[in-house]
Amino acid sequence: MSLNYFLPTKVLLDEDCVKKNAELLGPLGKKAIIVTGKHSARVNGSLQDVRDALASQEIDYILFDKVESNPTILTARQGAAFAKENNADFVIGIGGGSPMDAAKAIALLACQELSDDELFSGQYKNEILPLVLLPTTAGTGSEVTQYSILTNDKAQSKTSIATPLLFPKIAMVDAKYTVGLPLKTTINTAVDALSHSIEGMLAIKANSLIDLLATESITKIAGSFGKLLSGDIDAACRAELIYASTLAGIVIAHTGTTAVHSMGYSLTYFHHIDHGRANGLLLAAFFAFVEKKNPSVIRHLLDIMGLKDLAAFKNTLGSLLGEKEKIDRQDFEKFADIAIKAKNIANCTVVPTRQDLYNMYVESFE
Amino acid sequence: MSLNYFLPTKVLLDEDCVKKNAELLGPLGKKAIIVTGKHSARVNGSLQDVRDALASQEIDYILFDKVESNPTILTARQGAAFAKENNADFVIGIGGGSPMDAAKAIALLACQELSDDELFSGQYKNEILPLVLLPTTAGTGSEVTQYSILTNDKAQSKTSIATPLLFPKIAMVDAKYTVGLPLKTTINTAVDALSHSIEGMLAIKANSLIDLLATESITKIAGSFGKLLSGDIDAACRAELIYASTLAGIVIAHTGTTAVHSMGYSLTYFHHIDHGRANGLLLAAFFAFVEKKNPSVIRHLLDIMGLKDLAAFKNTLGSLLGEKEKIDRQDFEKFADIAIKAKNIANCTVVPTRQDLYNMYVESFE
Repeated sequence: MSLNYFLPTKVLLDEDCVKKNAELLGPLGKKAIIVTGKHSARVNGSLQDVRDALASQEIDYILFDKVESNPTILTARQGAAFAKENNADFVIGIGGGSPMDAAKAIALLACQELSDDELFSGQYKNEILPLVLLPTTAGTGSEVTQYSILTNDKAQSKTSIATPLLFPKIAMVDAKYTVGLPLKTTINTAVDALSHSIEGMLAIKANSLIDLLATESITKIAGSFGKLLSGDIDAACRAELIYASTLAGIVIAHTGTTAVHSMGYSLTYFHHIDHGRANGLLLAAFFAFVEKKNPSVIRHLLDIMGLKDLAAFKNTLGSLLGEKEKIDRQDFEKFADIAIKAKNIANCTVVPTRQDLYNMYVESFE
Repeated sequence: MSLNYFLPTKVLLDEDCVKKNAELLGPLGKKAIIVTGKHSARVNGSLQDVRDALASQEIDYILFDKVESNPTILTARQGAAFAKENNADFVIGIGGGSPMDAAKAIALLACQELSDDELFSGQYKNEILPLVLLPTTAGTGSEVTQYSILTNDKAQSKTSIATPLLFPKIAMVDAKYTVGLPLKTTINTAVDALSHSIEGMLAIKANSLIDLLATESITKIAGSFGKLLSGDIDAACRAELIYASTLAGIVIAHTGTTAVHSMGYSLTYFHHIDHGRANGLLLAAFFAFVEKKNPSVIRHLLDIMGLKDLAAFKNTLGSLLGEKEKIDRQDFEKFADIAIKAKNIANCTVVPTRQDLYNMYVESFE
């Protein structure tokens, strides 16, 4: 029995948690930079809640609302320059994974001069702007991780900045911001969170406590499969999904992800397939791969989800994700070459070869 | 569904974790003060492991080994003065709850001038020596809490210093230090941890994640009842108990304790009954009290422990704790007067009156 646990983020998950905890923002500084995307934070009420909370504490702010899906290093550099020009004291990131990950990189780059290579090096000075993150989807878990995933054109993939510096000071998690999400986004993000918890349990760094959190997270998401399939997603389901995705974030903060994420990044980079969907499309093939070496862990995961067998899992994911993209086998050769170089590969309890990765791509799409 | 979670401590639970993680001590400073009791840290190997780890990092140390059971404010002041005289940069506390709680108060008092009243005020400057804690019993959970419980003669009880400043930087948890503990100590500390997780689930601040951790902790301790009763406690059982007690510490870090602890403190202060034993002697009566208002939560707790009914719980605790002390009813009148003033009372989901507290004392000892 062993345990290696560290989560220095204050996690506040509750209805109206931004309003209820506005006074926690006061000690962070006199001026915030709000980092978000173009639209959703305006529509779901999160941006207004943050503005009100800042006003209640007499904190000034600037708004950087230029974060695109799968944000680039350039976007992070622009945000950091904007923060520096305006002497922002801390960063509030609002959104799905993209704005939150950009907010983290902005907080880092606002305090440290780093080349593109240095940005992913793992070697940093101990300086970063304090971070507050508000998820507005129930998937990424970025609000409780030390990772910022940026599009890295040099690696033709998405690459992680990973440092404990990136743990936010505060995560404010309110399911109400997810209520208006389209069904497709709700499914893709739920599948992303599911993949995080599953991959966590299949990673070499898993331990008793992490298994416990992952099991709870998987149970909640699998318990929502019916509602996700019917499209009838009520507030209680939204609350369970964001709780599950935050737990899944805590899981991967400790375990990292596995080959599923390594493979998924190419689907996103080259075919613009949504990140959660990309993981979901690959998950059943990964189960089949792991099952050959370790059938008991797959049986355990299926039991947690209340599924009879691997075919049932494949069918459920198939129904949730709908028709698959058509991708050429040539592409899979290239993707396997890229994925095998990722750090996450060595993080699998059953380590795939390059050929295994290729086979999983083929099995997933044919 | 709501969640309010904060644990900034790095928790390392593993065999030989001090040796394996010695390099984490380097950044904490050039000189440590080791705070411990007279004997056990020498006997169980923990003091030597810490000395070796410090030597490997070329860190000097001073030793303060004067912590008694249920440490006083005076002891903490002496330790703090010793730390200041010797310019200690950080504090390593080794032991059961007493040395760890003393270490926390020493870390605080080494940086801040506080009168006895100010010490329990909750108002502090943001200054404390970094703390590393090593539990050598599986009970207190102090290695993962923001509490330091000191004997407070003015209040004729034990009183908490409670501030997030007291969260240790690092908790190093190794079951091997508990292997030589006498059976009685093993039982008393296991019952203390059980009480923490149970009280956490019965506290108003409980939430989904805390319930999950408490359930895991209670399951592990109840799973060890048989071995505790037989006295045949193997290494696997030791590992489960210390894992459970660390989880229970995380639980009370979030929920606080309840009337059981408030009542137990008088048994310890006036009758020198071990702290864990004191809680255990009161627990069944507290169950009976809560059951009248909320039978379902008590049924749930009994189910987690695999017990048929409240009588079975009472019998199990009775067998574990043995013959009860004889205490005069007059004393219970006084204890009830003291306990009703404690903050923990308002923390119960079913709040007892002074008369309820008196009745629980009587029921527990007659």
